[in-house]
Amino acid sequence: MDVYEAIRSRRSTRAYQEVPIDDEALKRIIEAGRFAPSGANNQTTHFLVIRNRRILDDLADMVRAEFAKMDVTDGMNSSLVKAIRASKAGPYVFHYRAPVLIVTANRTAYSNGIADCACAIENMMLMANALDLGSCWINQLRWLNENEAVCAFLRRLGMAENECAYGALILGYPKTKDGLPVRDPLPRTGNPVTFVD
Amino acid sequence: MDVYEAIRSRRSTRAYQEVPIDDEALKRIIEAGRFAPSGANNQTTHFLVIRNRRILDDLADMVRAEFAKMDVTDGMNSSLVKAIRASKAGPYVFHYRAPVLIVTANRTAYSNGIADCACAIENMMLMANALDLGSCWINQLRWLNENEAVCAFLRRLGMAENECAYGALILGYPKTKDGLPVRDPLPRTGNPVTFVD
Repeated sequence: MDVYEAIRSRRSTRAYQEVPIDDEALKRIIEAGRFAPSGANNQTTHFLVIRNRRILDDLADMVRAEFAKMDVTDGMNSSLVKAIRASKAGPYVFHYRAPVLIVTANRTAYSNGIADCACAIENMMLMANALDLGSCWINQLRWLNENEAVCAFLRRLGMAENECAYGALILGYPKTKDGLPVRDPLPRTGNPVTFVD
Repeated sequence: MDVYEAIRSRRSTRAYQEVPIDDEALKRIIEAGRFAPSGANNQTTHFLVIRNRRILDDLADMVRAEFAKMDVTDGMNSSLVKAIRASKAGPYVFHYRAPVLIVTANRTAYSNGIADCACAIENMMLMANALDLGSCWINQLRWLNENEAVCAFLRRLGMAENECAYGALILGYPKTKDGLPVRDPLPRTGNPVTFVD
């Protein structure tokens, strides 16, 4: 797929078929993430690729339990507020039961951590779109990246002691009639541009 | 250009020809940035596109002067340390005299500010590569995004009172023999991948 088309038609997918992703497609998507730039070319983003259903379910349960313990505070990010309220209310599955969750970790307290992970995630979302796979940015693990229980869980899966989660991505075949991502043009009224000539 | 090829062959360009960028190419690159995802689809990233040589020179002088006033402290990002030392030592031009600098601003103290801007910058770097233009991520304005003099300068150019710079990008025709970006495969030894099956 042409790069402009991949950029233009990428949309967030929040409903997935319960089928695993083709191995070659997954490898290509991770490769795209690894080709992303990094501050001073450090290449310290660590891709934790979780595709075990039981582990994904356990992680979703833990995330819900930890959010349910939190209090909403003034100035809190509105999406985080929604996650906390949904978790207190009942069932809440942060990863939409997607078959693959890729956690992008990087060195703890690293000033380029979010930026490096975001570039890798953007590359992976574009590559997924080009391969007719759906994807969606997942912020919940970053909001919990100082939460002891969640950090310990991710460390058991392979995240290093000096790493934390700066972002995450879900991937899968979209639960649409044709199995393809929804690619309607995105309504766009924001993102102002100022030219200084 | 194919999206995988655009991702694979993107490299940072730090030497530019002194010629302006084709208007249509620039518009396409900004459009690619605007198509990037944003937290809760807020679309609040503001693209400040600076291509006035005198303003770019003035901004470079101010950035150098402000870095020269700063002290290196323990645990400071190593690239910022280099910028401070180079600014104290003498000539230092953070934007490599590229013909275009795009500042990506967003709401001050916004928790998705860096991530949203990073996705937009990644899209723009890929689009630039596909159009045979060079680009490079610029971190200096983020390091100075609480600096009064630099903020005031950017506000005079159109950055809003409630915005600050979370990232920036330079663009231009590369100063290479053929005028094309260097696209040698990137040596890649980092970016570990852990599969959890």
